[in-house]
Amino acid sequence: MQLGVIGLGRMGAIVVDRVLDAGHDVVAFDLDDDAVAAAADAGATPADSIEDLVGKLGDEKRIWLMVPAGPAVDAALDDLEDVLDADDIVVDGGNSHFEDSVRRAESTEAAYLDCGTSGGPAGAELGFSLMIGGPEWAYDELTPVFDAVATGPAGHDRMGAAGSGHYVKMVHNGVEYALMQAYGEGFELLAEGRYDLDLEAVARTWNNGAVIRSWLLELCEEAFREEGSDLGDVDDHVAGGSTGTWTVQEALEQEISLPLIYQALAERFASRDERFSRRLANRLRYGFGRHEVARKEE
Amino acid sequence: MQLGVIGLGRMGAIVVDRVLDAGHDVVAFDLDDDAVAAAADAGATPADSIEDLVGKLGDEKRIWLMVPAGPAVDAALDDLEDVLDADDIVVDGGNSHFEDSVRRAESTEAAYLDCGTSGGPAGAELGFSLMIGGPEWAYDELTPVFDAVATGPAGHDRMGAAGSGHYVKMVHNGVEYALMQAYGEGFELLAEGRYDLDLEAVARTWNNGAVIRSWLLELCEEAFREEGSDLGDVDDHVAGGSTGTWTVQEALEQEISLPLIYQALAERFASRDERFSRRLANRLRYGFGRHEVARKEE
Amino acid sequence: MQLGVIGLGRMGAIVVDRVLDAGHDVVAFDLDDDAVAAAADAGATPADSIEDLVGKLGDEKRIWLMVPAGPAVDAALDDLEDVLDADDIVVDGGNSHFEDSVRRAESTEAAYLDCGTSGGPAGAELGFSLMIGGPEWAYDELTPVFDAVATGPAGHDRMGAAGSGHYVKMVHNGVEYALMQAYGEGFELLAEGRYDLDLEAVARTWNNGAVIRSWLLELCEEAFREEGSDLGDVDDHVAGGSTGTWTVQEALEQEISLPLIYQALAERFASRDERFSRRLANRLRYGFGRHEVARKEE
Amino acid sequence: MQLGVIGLGRMGAIVVDRVLDAGHDVVAFDLDDDAVAAAADAGATPADSIEDLVGKLGDEKRIWLMVPAGPAVDAALDDLEDVLDADDIVVDGGNSHFEDSVRRAESTEAAYLDCGTSGGPAGAELGFSLMIGGPEWAYDELTPVFDAVATGPAGHDRMGAAGSGHYVKMVHNGVEYALMQAYGEGFELLAEGRYDLDLEAVARTWNNGAVIRSWLLELCEEAFREEGSDLGDVDDHVAGGSTGTWTVQEALEQEISLPLIYQALAERFASRDERFSRRLANRLRYGFGRHEVARKEE
Repeated sequence: MQLGVIGLGRMGAIVVDRVLDAGHDVVAFDLDDDAVAAAADAGATPADSIEDLVGKLGDEKRIWLMVPAGPAVDAALDDLEDVLDADDIVVDGGNSHFEDSVRRAESTEAAYLDCGTSGGPAGAELGFSLMIGGPEWAYDELTPVFDAVATGPAGHDRMGAAGSGHYVKMVHNGVEYALMQAYGEGFELLAEGRYDLDLEAVARTWNNGAVIRSWLLELCEEAFREEGSDLGDVDDHVAGGSTGTWTVQEALEQEISLPLIYQALAERFASRDERFSRRLANRLRYGFGRHEVARKEE
Repeated sequence: MQLGVIGLGRMGAIVVDRVLDAGHDVVAFDLDDDAVAAAADAGATPADSIEDLVGKLGDEKRIWLMVPAGPAVDAALDDLEDVLDADDIVVDGGNSHFEDSVRRAESTEAAYLDCGTSGGPAGAELGFSLMIGGPEWAYDELTPVFDAVATGPAGHDRMGAAGSGHYVKMVHNGVEYALMQAYGEGFELLAEGRYDLDLEAVARTWNNGAVIRSWLLELCEEAFREEGSDLGDVDDHVAGGSTGTWTVQEALEQEISLPLIYQALAERFASRDERFSRRLANRLRYGFGRHEVARKEE
Repeated sequence: MQLGVIGLGRMGAIVVDRVLDAGHDVVAFDLDDDAVAAAADAGATPADSIEDLVGKLGDEKRIWLMVPAGPAVDAALDDLEDVLDADDIVVDGGNSHFEDSVRRAESTEAAYLDCGTSGGPAGAELGFSLMIGGPEWAYDELTPVFDAVATGPAGHDRMGAAGSGHYVKMVHNGVEYALMQAYGEGFELLAEGRYDLDLEAVARTWNNGAVIRSWLLELCEEAFREEGSDLGDVDDHVAGGSTGTWTVQEALEQEISLPLIYQALAERFASRDERFSRRLANRLRYGFGRHEVARKEE
Repeated sequence: MQLGVIGLGRMGAIVVDRVLDAGHDVVAFDLDDDAVAAAADAGATPADSIEDLVGKLGDEKRIWLMVPAGPAVDAALDDLEDVLDADDIVVDGGNSHFEDSVRRAESTEAAYLDCGTSGGPAGAELGFSLMIGGPEWAYDELTPVFDAVATGPAGHDRMGAAGSGHYVKMVHNGVEYALMQAYGEGFELLAEGRYDLDLEAVARTWNNGAVIRSWLLELCEEAFREEGSDLGDVDDHVAGGSTGTWTVQEALEQEISLPLIYQALAERFASRDERFSRRLANRLRYGFGRHEVARKEE
C-alpha cells in the first residue's frame, strides 16, 4: 500500500517510520525541507509540495495529514481540493475539533477519516491508539496502514460516523486531565503529609499490581526517578487545555455533569495567575471580621 | 439583670457595651488590665480575677465567656468549677467546636448555653445573630441579655439541645466560605473578562434590588470602593479555615456531599502554597507529550 | 416621558405599572390581547400591533422590549427595523446572551441598550436592579424610566459599552446558582445532621445580623415557613441553567477557574437523571474488589 | 519459611495459596471451619484457634493477619499478646486506619508491620502490590513471604516507619476513587453524547496504546463487554467510602486541597439519597422567579 503523509513533525515522523517498517510505501511532504530529508533517509519518497506529493501517488490516493489542528488542516485540504475524488481517502490524524471534522467531511470530495491519535512519543516503539470516524469502506481500506501506525489490530477501531474519532479523542483528553490531577493530588498528600516517603518507590510499588496502576503512573515513577521526590525545580504552572475545554463545552451542551474533568481543567487555569477571587476573600475577611489584610510586598 | 463577662477582646467589649446600653449591670474581667479599665469606663464593675468576678455576682450567677475557642474556655470553666451550682448559667459565646460544647455541658454543674455569634464588628451597632443550644429554662432566663446582644428578639433563638448553637454556627461559617468564593468567582470573571468595569458600581447596582443582594455583597461594594476595582495591593493568600474544616469533617461523618463548601475551603488551602499536584502535571505533560517543562527561575 | 413596551408577561407588566406609577405615559403591546387589556386597565395606551405601537409614539421613540430571550427579540427588532432611526432608543430588558446584544446593537439603526434585569416578582413593589450597556446618551436620556423601573437611582447603572449589561447579568446569574447551592448545602447538613432543627428559625436567626444574611436567605426562610423543615413534597429536580451555562462558557474562553459556579450548574444537570458515571463506578467496584453490584429493581 | 495466617476470607485465602505455591509452610486459622478446611486442602496446616496456631509455629513466629479492619484486628492482637515477644513479627494486611497501626505498633511487643494490600481478586494470579510500614529488620526478614504474596520483588516495598504502609494505601484508595469517577465522566459523556458508540470498543482501543490506558480501564472494557454499552440494569448507587473519607480527613488536617478526590467521594455520598440542597434550589427558584416547583408524585 502507498501512503502520502503531509506533516512530518514529531508525530508525523513516527507515522512515516511505522508505515515504512510495515513494508508500505510512503510519499512524504513537509514545509520544512529537513523533515522531508529525514523521511527520505528513512525510506520515504520525498515530495517538495503537496502537488508533487499527489503526483507521486497512484490513482487511488491515500493521504495522512499530521499537521497542527486548525487553519493548517484547512490549508492542506484547500491544496488537495481539486485533485481528490470520491475514490480517494484523507485521514486527519491531528487533534482537530470534532465539529471541524464533521464540516470537513461534508465539504471534501474524498472520503474523510478523522483519526484521534494517542500515545505520545512512546508510540514510536509501541504504536498508537487510533480512534477513527468516517465511512466504513475507507476505514476498511486503510486497515493495513492503521495496523502499522497503531499498536496493532486492537489499537484502532472505527468509532462511527464523521467526527466520532475526534469526539472520542476529545473525551480521552478530558479524562487524561482528570487522571493527571488525581495522581497529582495523591502524591501531593504523600509529599507534604506525615511521612518522609520515596515517591519513586511508592509509584513503582503501585505499578506492580495495585488497582491504580497505569501508564500515567509509570510516567509518575519516571518523573520522580528523574526529578526526585520533591520534583526539584519543576514549576507549578500547567500549560495546555484546549481539548479539555472542548470536552467541558460539549458536556455543557449535553447538560452532563463533569465535576472532576472541569476541576482538573480549572486547576490548570488557576495555576497560571494569582486568583482575583482569593484576593477578594482576603479583603472580605477584614470586612466582616477585621482579620488583617495580607498585602503584596513592595 | 446582672451579667458577668469574662473576656473583653473586640467581641467581648461589644457584648459589655450592648448589655450596659440595655440597662443591665455588668461585672467584667479580662487578663488584660487595660481591657478591664475600658469596660469600667463604659460603666461595668471591674473584676481583677474570676474569683473576684464571681464574688461580685449575686446568688444566681449568669456568666458570659467570650474567650478564644479551645483551652481558654476549659481554663475559665476550671476556675468556675467550684463556685457554680445548678442554678447558675454559663454562656460560651465563642467559636467552640460543638463536640467540646456537648462535653462541657455534661461536665459543668451550672446550666451551659453554647452560643454561636455572628455579625463581626458591625454587630457593635446592629447587634449580633445568636444561635443558642442548651436547656430551655436557661435560654428563657437570659432572654433580656440575648435581646440586648442580638439585633433584638428576632436575632436570637434556641436551636436545640447542648451543642446545637455551635453546630449551627459551624455550618453558618461553612456557608460563609462558599458565599465569599461565589462572589469572588463572579467578580474575578468581571475583572478579567471582556469589559472594563467599575466593580463598585456593579456591586452597588446589585445591592439595590438584585436577587444576589446581601450583606457580604455590601462588603464587596465597600472593598471595591476602598481598594479599587483591581483590589490594589491585596494579596491572594486567604487565612482562616477551622470552622470550614469542621463543617466538612462533620459532613464526611454524615456522608453528605458539600461540593461548594469543600471547594471554597480547598481554595483557601491552595492559596497558601505552590501546588505539588500542578508541578507533577507540568512534568507529566513532558512524559507523554514532550511538552516543555516549566522550571522555576534561579 | 413616553415609553413603548413590547411584551407584557409577568416582568413586562411590572415595568408598565412602575413606569405609569412614576407619572410617565406608556403604549403597550403584546401578542396576547388579555395582557394588552390589563395594561390598558392600568392606564397604558393599548396597541394592537408593533406598527400601531410605533404610530402612537412621538418622534423620538423609546421602546422597551420585555420578550423572551432568543428569536422573539430578533423578530421584534425586524418589525421595528424600518421605522426606527438614530434618534430612537430600544431597550432589551430580557435575559439575552451578551453576544446577541453586541450583534443587535451593531445592526440596529436606533440606539440599543441591553438591560439585565434582576429582582423577580418582588420587583413589583421594590423595583429591580438594572445593569445597562450601550451608548451613554441613550442611558442618560432614559434615566427617568430607569429610576421608575429600578429600586431608584441606585438600582441602575451603565456598566459600559454594548453587551456589558447582559454580560454583568449573566455573571450575576452564575453567582446566583452558587449562592443557592451554598445555602442548600448548609441546610442539607442541618436537615440531615445531628440535631432536630427548625430550619425556619435557623434562617430567621441568621437573617437578623449574621454574616450570611441576604435576600436569598430570606427566601429560604419563607420556603421553610411554607413547606416545613423537611421541604414537604418538593422534588430534587432543578430546572433552568442557560445563563449559568453561558457564564461557564465565557470563563472557559477567558481561562478563568469558576469551581463553585461550575459545580452549582453541574448539580442541576446531575439532578435531572441517574448518573452513568455512578453506574460505572458501581460496576467497577465489582471488577477490582468483587463488591456486589447493585441492580435496578424490576 | 513458616507463616501463620489468621483470617481466611477471599484475600486471606489468596495469601495462603501464594505463600504455599512459593514453597513455604503455612499454619492457617479462621473462625469459619470451612475456610480452615479449604486452606488445609491447599496444603496448609490447619489450626482450630489462635492458641493452636501459635503452638504450631516455631520459636520465631511470623503471623499475617488478614481480618477486617477495626475491632477484629485488636481482638486478634489481644489473643496474641501473651505469646509474642520481640523476636516475633505480626503483619496486618488489611485496610486499617494508619493511626490504628501506629497505636498497635506501639502497644505490641512483637515487631509490627502494617501492610497495605492492593490488587483485588486478580491478585490471586498476578500477586498484589504491598505497601509496608514498620521496622526494617522485620521487613527484610519477611521478604520471601512478600515476594510470594506480591507480584514479585518489585511489588512490595518498605514505605517507612510504623503506619506508613497503611497511610500510602489510604492515599492509593483516594486516588482510586478519583480515577474511577474520571473514567466514569468520560464514558458518561460518550454514552449520552452525540454519537452512538460501542463503549467496549472505545475502551479496548484506548487500552491499546492511549495515554489513559490502565488496569481500571481494562475493568471498564470488561464491564461494557459483560453489561453492554448502556450498563444494562446496573444501578447508580455507589457503596464504599471509608478509605476515601480518611484520605480527605487527613488532607484537611494537612491543609492540602484535594478537589478531585473529595468530589469523587461526594459523588458516592450523593448517589445514595435524594439531595436536600436540590430540593431547596427547586423551591428557591419559585421564590425569586416564580418558576414552577416540581413536586414529588403521590
